[in-house]
Amino acid sequence: MSTKNQIFPKYYQISRDIIANIQKGRLITGSQVPSENEIIEKYGVSNTTARKALQEIEHNGWVTRIKGKGTYVTNNKVERSVTRILGFTVNMNEAGREPSTRLIQLKTLENNHTLTINRRQYVLRGPLCMIHRIRFADDIPMMVEKRYISLQFCPDIQEKDLEKSLYEIYENYYGLQLSQVDQKLSAVMTEPEEISYFDLVKPVPAFRVEGVTFCGKELILEMENSLYRGDMYSFSVKAVR
Amino acid sequence: MSTKNQIFPKYYQISRDIIANIQKGRLITGSQVPSENEIIEKYGVSNTTARKALQEIEHNGWVTRIKGKGTYVTNNKVERSVTRILGFTVNMNEAGREPSTRLIQLKTLENNHTLTINRRQYVLRGPLCMIHRIRFADDIPMMVEKRYISLQFCPDIQEKDLEKSLYEIYENYYGLQLSQVDQKLSAVMTEPEEISYFDLVKPVPAFRVEGVTFCGKELILEMENSLYRGDMYSFSVKAVR
Repeated sequence: MSTKNQIFPKYYQISRDIIANIQKGRLITGSQVPSENEIIEKYGVSNTTARKALQEIEHNGWVTRIKGKGTYVTNNKVERSVTRILGFTVNMNEAGREPSTRLIQLKTLENNHTLTINRRQYVLRGPLCMIHRIRFADDIPMMVEKRYISLQFCPDIQEKDLEKSLYEIYENYYGLQLSQVDQKLSAVMTEPEEISYFDLVKPVPAFRVEGVTFCGKELILEMENSLYRGDMYSFSVKAVR
Repeated sequence: MSTKNQIFPKYYQISRDIIANIQKGRLITGSQVPSENEIIEKYGVSNTTARKALQEIEHNGWVTRIKGKGTYVTNNKVERSVTRILGFTVNMNEAGREPSTRLIQLKTLENNHTLTINRRQYVLRGPLCMIHRIRFADDIPMMVEKRYISLQFCPDIQEKDLEKSLYEIYENYYGLQLSQVDQKLSAVMTEPEEISYFDLVKPVPAFRVEGVTFCGKELILEMENSLYRGDMYSFSVKAVR
């Protein structure tokens, strides 16, 4: 146990330990967390401490206790409406989570970037700014994204604060009106690089999202290639006649 | 080799063998299929036969040959637009594939069926008809679905041909106008039961689709719980402001 942890009471340390196992994908939705007796045995604590640890985890919304049955990992997925033009920041605020962002890489590309959705090929003209970011909710890594942004529409975007909402930068700084987003979703497993970004112990199913964002009438502003954790997200869709 | 196969030329049997490995998930998109030399060695055939086998597989659209590099499994995914009200049959016809259906189970349920999407709970009133089906394209199992259908809107639907398009039955036989479909997508791995329906050798990532279909103004006609193979499907979505 690190010195940093020694200032926290024992029940709290145990609760953090179990929550970390949920966040890292060791304990998945619907699985059982250790019982009071298992905590007593594993950590060498009293039943009062074990009970307080489980209460702490429950209080934080990670688990549901079912009397006489056990304590189960709750469905903590965020629902994302994919038929709305919806940035990560707004989505997390609406879900009552605290969004944050880490910029991993930033570079300028001279070439065009292309993407095919439903047999239609889209071309985003270079030069582009490519940014690679990890997005967090309550400090849990939720998705990792690469965005390719037109430097024609957004000159000098490299100098903006790229750990903030891009949609806000587009709209407030460049005065661009986002008009349409076309996306292609694939069901995949996380790759080793993504597993490390997500701080997972093993691969999880995930959504690969490739998309093109338009501003005004049919002008291509940016493209994305993102990976959303399947254990943290479900997507909702509305189709109308 | 079965007697049934003995009437086909050797190159054709080899091509079917390799195509079966693609269909069963042993060879995934982007992976390399056996080279001419590997086919010669494995099947004890001439280089002419090995070359014809690879040509046959390529001719059927399963692989792409890259000169001097090898032969790779093509992306054969069907794109499904989830922002259209689109049945499996029409989707496959548009993709140039031959749809077919196998009914696994049919039963009547007295109780209501519920589904929560984006925090909103929907209730489909019983009695219901539940049908469980596997849907095929060109004889490849693509998805497996459970549908819960209101017997109030569709009395005696049990007696219809349930290996045909349900959407056609709703519209042509019961005169119902489908007005809206709300769906929730999850990224999951296939479960053992589904692996056997799909005739796979190991789990693949997949889309779980839970949905509610409305007719007229806010009337719930049916609910679905389906699993779409992630190696056979990508979903496309359009969001507009």
